[in-house]
Amino acid sequence: MRFGNLDSRLVLVTDRGAVDVATASEGEFGPDPQEVFPRWEAFTAWAAALDTATVPAEPFEPERLGAPVPRPGQLFAIGLNYRDHAAESGVTVPDSPPVFTKFRGSITGPCGPVVLAGETVDWEVELVVVIGRTARHVTEADAWSHVAGLTVGQDLSERTVQLTGPVPQFSLGKSYPGFTPMGPWLVTVDELVAAGLDPDALDLGCSVNGEPVQKGTTADLVFSVPALIAALSAVLPLEPGDVIFTGTPSGIGAARVPQWFLREGDRLVSTIAGIGELQQHFVAASKEK
Amino acid sequence: MRFGNLDSRLVLVTDRGAVDVATASEGEFGPDPQEVFPRWEAFTAWAAALDTATVPAEPFEPERLGAPVPRPGQLFAIGLNYRDHAAESGVTVPDSPPVFTKFRGSITGPCGPVVLAGETVDWEVELVVVIGRTARHVTEADAWSHVAGLTVGQDLSERTVQLTGPVPQFSLGKSYPGFTPMGPWLVTVDELVAAGLDPDALDLGCSVNGEPVQKGTTADLVFSVPALIAALSAVLPLEPGDVIFTGTPSGIGAARVPQWFLREGDRLVSTIAGIGELQQHFVAASKEK
Repeated sequence: MRFGNLDSRLVLVTDRGAVDVATASEGEFGPDPQEVFPRWEAFTAWAAALDTATVPAEPFEPERLGAPVPRPGQLFAIGLNYRDHAAESGVTVPDSPPVFTKFRGSITGPCGPVVLAGETVDWEVELVVVIGRTARHVTEADAWSHVAGLTVGQDLSERTVQLTGPVPQFSLGKSYPGFTPMGPWLVTVDELVAAGLDPDALDLGCSVNGEPVQKGTTADLVFSVPALIAALSAVLPLEPGDVIFTGTPSGIGAARVPQWFLREGDRLVSTIAGIGELQQHFVAASKEK
Repeated sequence: MRFGNLDSRLVLVTDRGAVDVATASEGEFGPDPQEVFPRWEAFTAWAAALDTATVPAEPFEPERLGAPVPRPGQLFAIGLNYRDHAAESGVTVPDSPPVFTKFRGSITGPCGPVVLAGETVDWEVELVVVIGRTARHVTEADAWSHVAGLTVGQDLSERTVQLTGPVPQFSLGKSYPGFTPMGPWLVTVDELVAAGLDPDALDLGCSVNGEPVQKGTTADLVFSVPALIAALSAVLPLEPGDVIFTGTPSGIGAARVPQWFLREGDRLVSTIAGIGELQQHFVAASKEK
């Protein structure tokens, strides 16, 4: 199943279009996409029983979609989680996953303009995990059962801000408005399995103006999705609606010779097989006003 | 005025005790302490007009208080923001404030037990700023008008987790459950001024088992409260109910010779003049279950 945020309303995404959840459930589930996660099990049971062939559905353009998880209580972002990306960054692979955050004000939907906050804005396509059931001291074997679904994320980064100063500014340099696109929707793990995909080995990549710049597979994660859930839940509880940005493979602009950063008019397309794609285009800061 | 979180209900704290806001306002303002911040101006206007000499008030023990801001949308924590603390940490004072987060699951009330998550748990008393009005591209001169109030915070830190690995784990090492006590209540800036205090020069400190370990004044902040609001709001909007942990003065345990970390049974008292105090006692991890 696929769930999205259409004009700030929770929808079930079907081949026929978007099914408004509040209407179809006669108010059993509200319209707020964030509020559904604490009731995820009941919600997916209701959605599974729905006759999607006959329920009213609305075709839509992806530009109307917002982030499927618009207000996570906690957003964990993982650094250096692919060997080839750690290598291109000149850093050894860590023994435990480095964790930072992207502040909520940076979250945006899957399509649309992003203001260039500086001269060194860079791309990082990432698999994003959304928690559906409280996880505390969870084993890797049990971890997937705590996942509501997966979506595509971009961990856009202003490298000068991120890397300047005595303490790396990962959280701040990655939190300008629009720097955390997510979407186009949330895909449940059983949907991926039914499509013949392995949720632990999903192809992901991104392109700038049609030129491929990142290409990888989540099979190469240093800390897999289950390992991340085990490690984070050993520190503190992960709650429904929390989000994990799992890290990016190699191919970032900052590691290229010469370096390559996003410029006005550039188009960034980020894809994960079986989930969908994000489409950002970049505008100059002076055009913001 | 002082506002608190008593048994998860928003209360006005008076000399006669706690005034239940939902009851006294006849439902104009709800009981959720977090939900009041988007209506902060209307709320404080209502509270200012209340006859606190006659409204029903309930005496209470501080152990019943929760964090005055239990679910901030964004929690910004600032590192190395006092010269003497940067010096004891062996780091030069940065040109811009280093920002990390403490994840929401670590937030707790002002009094009570904290489980020792490791062998190197350390104290950091901090002034905590709560936003009351959206701040975006705010000048230092205008910054205080965006503040709902101030409270006391402890930025408890597991130093081994925080400082091990190729990327400092500030956010994770400071986010174990109970590692972010706040309170005892939120004090408005006008209340501090009326008491003859300068909100830009508040004495703060903490003691372990009665022995003073930190003692400073927010006048020594490298980046003052207005400077922090200006710097953060230049990156992204600060929203009502967001929180800023402003950094800690010198005297942490990790910088002492020999090093000094918190042990089972230790009692930590953290105070800011004109606001109040936090009281934590520490229990072994094995006692958690």
